[in-house]
Amino acid sequence: MSDVKYVIGVDFGSDSARALVVNAQTGEELASEVALYRRWSQGLYSDAARNQFRHHPLDYLESLEECITGALAKLPPEVARNVVGIGIDTTGSTPGPVDENGTPLAMLNEFKDNPNAMFILWKDHTAVREAAEINQLAKTWGGVDYTKYEGGVYSSEWFWAKILHILRVDEQVRQAAYSWVEVCDWLPAVLTGTAKPKALKRSRCAAGHKAMWHAEWGGLPSEEFLTQLDPLLKGLRERLFTETYTSDVKAGDLTAEWAARLGLPAGVAVAVGAFDAHMGAVGGGVKEHALVKIMGTSTCDVMVASKDELGDALVAGICGQVDGSVIPGMIGLEAGQSAFGDVYAWLREVLFWPWEALAEEAGLSEDTLSRIRERILVKLTEAAAQVDPSTTTLVALDWLNGRRTPYADQELKGAIAGLTLGTDAPRLFRALVESTAFGAKAIVERFREEGLQINEVIALGGIPGKNPFVMQVSADVLGMPIKVVRSEQAVALGAAMFGAVVAGLYDNVSAAQEAMGSGFSKIYTPDPESTKRYAELYRKYLHMGELLAETLRAL
Amino acid sequence: MSDVKYVIGVDFGSDSARALVVNAQTGEELASEVALYRRWSQGLYSDAARNQFRHHPLDYLESLEECITGALAKLPPEVARNVVGIGIDTTGSTPGPVDENGTPLAMLNEFKDNPNAMFILWKDHTAVREAAEINQLAKTWGGVDYTKYEGGVYSSEWFWAKILHILRVDEQVRQAAYSWVEVCDWLPAVLTGTAKPKALKRSRCAAGHKAMWHAEWGGLPSEEFLTQLDPLLKGLRERLFTETYTSDVKAGDLTAEWAARLGLPAGVAVAVGAFDAHMGAVGGGVKEHALVKIMGTSTCDVMVASKDELGDALVAGICGQVDGSVIPGMIGLEAGQSAFGDVYAWLREVLFWPWEALAEEAGLSEDTLSRIRERILVKLTEAAAQVDPSTTTLVALDWLNGRRTPYADQELKGAIAGLTLGTDAPRLFRALVESTAFGAKAIVERFREEGLQINEVIALGGIPGKNPFVMQVSADVLGMPIKVVRSEQAVALGAAMFGAVVAGLYDNVSAAQEAMGSGFSKIYTPDPESTKRYAELYRKYLHMGELLAETLRAL
Repeated sequence: MSDVKYVIGVDFGSDSARALVVNAQTGEELASEVALYRRWSQGLYSDAARNQFRHHPLDYLESLEECITGALAKLPPEVARNVVGIGIDTTGSTPGPVDENGTPLAMLNEFKDNPNAMFILWKDHTAVREAAEINQLAKTWGGVDYTKYEGGVYSSEWFWAKILHILRVDEQVRQAAYSWVEVCDWLPAVLTGTAKPKALKRSRCAAGHKAMWHAEWGGLPSEEFLTQLDPLLKGLRERLFTETYTSDVKAGDLTAEWAARLGLPAGVAVAVGAFDAHMGAVGGGVKEHALVKIMGTSTCDVMVASKDELGDALVAGICGQVDGSVIPGMIGLEAGQSAFGDVYAWLREVLFWPWEALAEEAGLSEDTLSRIRERILVKLTEAAAQVDPSTTTLVALDWLNGRRTPYADQELKGAIAGLTLGTDAPRLFRALVESTAFGAKAIVERFREEGLQINEVIALGGIPGKNPFVMQVSADVLGMPIKVVRSEQAVALGAAMFGAVVAGLYDNVSAAQEAMGSGFSKIYTPDPESTKRYAELYRKYLHMGELLAETLRAL
Repeated sequence: MSDVKYVIGVDFGSDSARALVVNAQTGEELASEVALYRRWSQGLYSDAARNQFRHHPLDYLESLEECITGALAKLPPEVARNVVGIGIDTTGSTPGPVDENGTPLAMLNEFKDNPNAMFILWKDHTAVREAAEINQLAKTWGGVDYTKYEGGVYSSEWFWAKILHILRVDEQVRQAAYSWVEVCDWLPAVLTGTAKPKALKRSRCAAGHKAMWHAEWGGLPSEEFLTQLDPLLKGLRERLFTETYTSDVKAGDLTAEWAARLGLPAGVAVAVGAFDAHMGAVGGGVKEHALVKIMGTSTCDVMVASKDELGDALVAGICGQVDGSVIPGMIGLEAGQSAFGDVYAWLREVLFWPWEALAEEAGLSEDTLSRIRERILVKLTEAAAQVDPSTTTLVALDWLNGRRTPYADQELKGAIAGLTLGTDAPRLFRALVESTAFGAKAIVERFREEGLQINEVIALGGIPGKNPFVMQVSADVLGMPIKVVRSEQAVALGAAMFGAVVAGLYDNVSAAQEAMGSGFSKIYTPDPESTKRYAELYRKYLHMGELLAETLRAL
């Protein structure tokens, strides 16, 4: 018994943190615990109307402690005593300002309620203007285009845009911010007592995908570029970092203080952090020629390519390609759809509108209302699955939240064409499902056009286990089998695999995947007839997208 | 008292007939009565899935008697004794086969349950193939293009297409059909004992708009054209008609038999019939430079132009231009939108779908359900009126039932573009309302491009009295005042005006309009700011329509 080792994966999402305790030899998932971010849950520091979304650093620390101790409390005490590694993933790009000690400014009394001193959550869009300036400068300044390994388009959701925005709007924070960290860098550093900016091991994944870090130009963009972007950035570069680390590298050993707080032995190995989608891809079994889709409200699509296969090729129109961002030694490629489940949720909300508006007249209680809201998509799915495709005339564009990949364009919008008086709600839903599958196919095609092979799709996230209809349509549209990852906590499982690697239990990440992977609970096999029909409809989707793109941008 | 004269207008719609008893001097509406078509109400002889819609001739005769006697029964007996004229309008083109006596075949025992022996309702679309053949031949046979005064495109809803279809599919009816009549020809003939095909006074309105009758080629299309279309038509032309009559001409005098059935004096003057929209336009006060819109599930748009103004010009892309089809002596012009209120009803049905699907789970009774169904558009209208236009990004195409005018194209379909995750049901509704107003504007522009002046719009039908929001948006989009006709029975009132003219009470239709018109209950004045904004959005509507037309046809 005593030679069984355990590892913990901790997944920091948008609303909560989840700890998963795993048998490090078998990958068996023993216990998990979710801890909500307390301040965030109360709606503090954010303002959805302005797309401002901030996380207080204490939310992370408190939930970290709560979820790990909560998971361990469900298990016999010898489990905690035999934990040997911890891996951590977070959302990103989620940077925050820190002082010379590496302490996030919001943890200082002076800044404790200042949202600009907190972590700027991935989906915060306050830096739209700054992103536009970065793109403009990168294409025109005469030097290297620093966006080239990030798909060629810098996003307002990313590191430099957010930093510059805060520097501009908050002089106090600017004065106090010695450096900036991604939360996926900061949390492992806290646990290992290595948070001082110069000591901190920065995540290759975060730096490469979001901070324009690349070996080609020796790290971050040049001081010249940054000061030309805005003199406010002067000097920051050298207070940031030059080196970056993949997550098979140990950030350090768990400090005695944190060991005590978490009920773990001191000295547990803690891996360098990375983003959730990337560790999730590892947890889901990513390997060459497989695309891993994390399918929820939006999708994150991750691949790995050998340097032999990819060579020096730049994959245009994706969210970045970074050596080691997923599996060390391979190029990690990231893409995604800005809205996936959110497209279905949109139709649900449209259909739910009359229920709220007429609730009183219909004598509906709050309880009934919220139950109905849950049931609408279930009913739609049942009915849409029964629709004879020859009786529907619709084609939709899935860009209701803009388009992330291929070729990021936040100004695009959605459309539904082919409406007749016979178009009913299930047919609308079916067309929307098809459109999100076409959006997925467009990403696959983008990779293929660059010469990358994709032979199978692996799915994890909220949708695959919940909606077989969506999954079957996706498989039919893609014309490829989609394998659904058995683990419902594949992201945390991926983090745990990195914990196992840095604990020395495996030589590399692939070996950890092999031993600890959960396998698949279901495979959706494409129906050849549907695939053929969808190939035709996909051409219409592409054609309509081309026809309407300019019009949609201008609306 | 005894010198007060009365007239009766009878309006035969799709579902029922309505009689309106009117003071012939003042136009005061004294009483009305609606009689449903009995067999039609039971769903007999029609098949919506195949777009087959048939009216049994007895439905017309029974409802004719029921609605006239019903209306008169509400009034003192001296009113009936002083009725001097009857005008009749019907839907159209609604032709039916008759024998040598002018008796509709379905009134013979042999054919009493054969839908092909009945009147083929305007919206019956079983003759799509035949219409295509007529269009094809008209453009290629080398002779005159007989469709040229009907907007250049022959419809499956019209006379020849329907006749040819029945001749092809029903040999028994073909053998027995001596001739064919429009129901607006047949009903006045029945009342006046003039139903024999050769004696029947045919409606100029029906013949000119739907049967390709024109003085230029001496009446109906040539025997050569018709037999080239299909040899089955051989000989029919000479059993139809050469002359046609405007509705200021008397069809004849009420027979003793019908006088007894209706409780009226024998000898009452009965006007030649015409289509409902055309008589409705007269009832609504149509005159030069005014467009009358009959706005319901679809719209019928009617104008009159002096021969001086129009000259020899052909107005392309409308539903026809016929000398005297509205006001004798002027060119009557017809256009229309295939779906108007039906577009809103479409959204209602989409939104209502979950209520039916979840009725049981929500504990909703049948009564509640049908009340909710009625309430959805009311709530949407309230909310859409509150939407700040700067917060919506939508533009829609209103072609959910194809496009009737400009340039008939039944293969077009609807579309909604500019969807975001923030697009809610009221915004969708608002976009659809705007799209139907843009469709109306496209018709106005078509007329104007041909040199016709339109200075005001007159509205009647179901929508104007019911939905001020739709009317205001329409006025804003058109940039013209819209006057709502006070009478809620303006179509029957128009028919009554013709009754008054043929009774000799007025020299002409305009004089009858002057004396008997109801005036307007409300004028919607365009808001200049909105008009300006909509001018921009209208350009986007046109542009999107051009971009998508081919794609929509192919869906």
